[in-house]
Amino acid sequence: MELHIGCIPGDGIGPEIVGEARKVLDRVAEKFGHTIQYTEILLGGASIDAHGVPLTEEAIEAAKSSDAVLMGSIGGDANTSPWYKLPPQKRPEAGLLAIRKALGLFANLRPAVLYDELAGACPLKEEISKAGFDMMIMRELTGGLYFGERKTTVENGIRTAVDTLTYNENEIRRIAIKAFDIAMKRRKKVTSVDKANVLDSSRLWRDVVNEVAKDYPQVELSHMLVDNCAMQLVKDPAQFDVILTENMFGDILSDEASMVTGSIGMLASASLNDTSFGLYEPSHGSAPDIAGKDIANPIATILSASMMLRYSFDLSAEADAVDNAVKQVLKDGYRTSDIMSEGCKKVGCREMGALLAERI
Amino acid sequence: MELHIGCIPGDGIGPEIVGEARKVLDRVAEKFGHTIQYTEILLGGASIDAHGVPLTEEAIEAAKSSDAVLMGSIGGDANTSPWYKLPPQKRPEAGLLAIRKALGLFANLRPAVLYDELAGACPLKEEISKAGFDMMIMRELTGGLYFGERKTTVENGIRTAVDTLTYNENEIRRIAIKAFDIAMKRRKKVTSVDKANVLDSSRLWRDVVNEVAKDYPQVELSHMLVDNCAMQLVKDPAQFDVILTENMFGDILSDEASMVTGSIGMLASASLNDTSFGLYEPSHGSAPDIAGKDIANPIATILSASMMLRYSFDLSAEADAVDNAVKQVLKDGYRTSDIMSEGCKKVGCREMGALLAERI
Ligand SMILES: CC(C)[C@H](C(=O)O)[C@@H](O)C(=O)O
Ligand SMILES: CC(C)[C@H](C(=O)O)[C@@H](O)C(=O)O
Repeated sequence: MELHIGCIPGDGIGPEIVGEARKVLDRVAEKFGHTIQYTEILLGGASIDAHGVPLTEEAIEAAKSSDAVLMGSIGGDANTSPWYKLPPQKRPEAGLLAIRKALGLFANLRPAVLYDELAGACPLKEEISKAGFDMMIMRELTGGLYFGERKTTVENGIRTAVDTLTYNENEIRRIAIKAFDIAMKRRKKVTSVDKANVLDSSRLWRDVVNEVAKDYPQVELSHMLVDNCAMQLVKDPAQFDVILTENMFGDILSDEASMVTGSIGMLASASLNDTSFGLYEPSHGSAPDIAGKDIANPIATILSASMMLRYSFDLSAEADAVDNAVKQVLKDGYRTSDIMSEGCKKVGCREMGALLAERI
Repeated sequence: MELHIGCIPGDGIGPEIVGEARKVLDRVAEKFGHTIQYTEILLGGASIDAHGVPLTEEAIEAAKSSDAVLMGSIGGDANTSPWYKLPPQKRPEAGLLAIRKALGLFANLRPAVLYDELAGACPLKEEISKAGFDMMIMRELTGGLYFGERKTTVENGIRTAVDTLTYNENEIRRIAIKAFDIAMKRRKKVTSVDKANVLDSSRLWRDVVNEVAKDYPQVELSHMLVDNCAMQLVKDPAQFDVILTENMFGDILSDEASMVTGSIGMLASASLNDTSFGLYEPSHGSAPDIAGKDIANPIATILSASMMLRYSFDLSAEADAVDNAVKQVLKDGYRTSDIMSEGCKKVGCREMGALLAERI
């Protein structure tokens, strides 16, 4: 198979971790008889530096003509980077939001998994963490407060700012269908999270999710209020299989869940549209403080590449090979510094990439 | 002093826990030479049962003519209670939102404290919990998505729902001032939480908070994105003193923080307006499953009564007496079942109230 992969190295540690993911993908291609063609694409700070804007039309076109895009991370240190002196629409994150919208990437998949070997890093008590957990957060990514109309006005000298949270039933239905489809391949449990005791958009969300659920009699659906979900993630994360929620709630809950694993350097993500196209990136940020030092953990990006093989190319044997390599390298005791613990062997970013490629 | 206290027993365990709080308040009055006059007020499910609506004009008037209101808890089991068959505007929580608005209670104070004696209940590892934590979450309570315009429409057969998130600078300034005032009496640190990389309302929030901060040169202000805050509450809760945030973010983060303490049955709250008036209630819910069994923990309500003495009546010696009684009863090893641990003496709701009254 010939894979056309768009590559967005991005900012901070982005280029390093994407480099290691390519190393692993190249090994997969060699082993399984595929060829990969990479197209480099600029986004975020790197694009501001080159073109003055965080996302260009050419970048969108390049992404669109790829089968899938692998991304490092976007943004820099908001306190020191000159990018953050620009108006909000010109900052690195604006590129990220714009590309999600331009490519119609409405379904954000964020696995939050506790690896046995890394359970020691979990901030929760052993009493709770010993049950383990493995959840998939399905976050709607192109609607809600992120993309509603907003404006700031001044009237009689008083500034007022407005943001709008809008969902129509089609936007809700398509992400709900993806969530149920994924639940069917997992433990067949969907927890839909909303604030239906306050928001109209949440009441519509709940109605439409209930409608979709009728087509999946084997899936157990429950509804949970967002404030309760923020509690349950700390109290008993093992209860969750698939969490389905809107954009802003998903932003908050997926980050909370990733911290609950204790190893955010291990967490991949996929953003999908209605075709097989997807944008794949680690859940963590660009960590500008450690950029260029060969100490970043490339595993989240490599697992994102695995999600790409699975979801965009339907190459599940190849994806399993990557996932197993990650498990093996952990068993073999290799750790980057963010997940280091006593008795393990500390390795840098490049060595971790090489160790993983070897295990494919 | 003569205290006119409005009393909202509410639903579920509400009447029991308010009963014990009154027992303690009566003892305070006796000891410190005050007289208390209680006026009973119906809200939520109890009001629906009596009047068909969750809040009546008379209830608002009764609350307004009190110096302060002490509340139990509102609502029932959403899966079984007939209240939840009513349209959203008629359900118990609608009464709660309506009374907040009617009384202008814009400042919601939610302490999240780890008590030494209850540290064993904290879901976090000892490594993290041993630092202890004691934070005050200041949540804006009458603006944002909760009170913006909302509507659900159907066009060409497609349902669309819209909620609006609005803040003007005055609404932000008054809650920010309260947060800085409270920080001045604490560890002089304010963390303002927003989503300024996406929302106009958050950018205005940040600007206004920065303006207010100029009048408090002794307070250290930092800004944090809401997704990051959801992570930091799990990773390192000790870093926080006062967290200042808007309504919906505050709903989510205060519940997360209360779960991080592991003893939600201990957490009080106050909702204040621009006068000395306030509504005081526990952070926990109405727990209909254990109602009437004399096993509920009344301490959160009793600590809410203490906040009332402090914030509405400026009776800090009296408030300290209540807070100390709570500490003493914990030291003496008495526990209701929700906070029970080995070697302690298990007591019911009424006995806990009596033990606390004795210690005033
Ligand atoms: C950078 C920011 C705009 C973005 C978001 O809020 O979606 C990030 O937090 C994420 O979750 O990918
Ligand atoms: C019952 C509900 C409307 C309410 C809220 O969201 O404000 C509750 O969760 C709270 O935090 O007091």
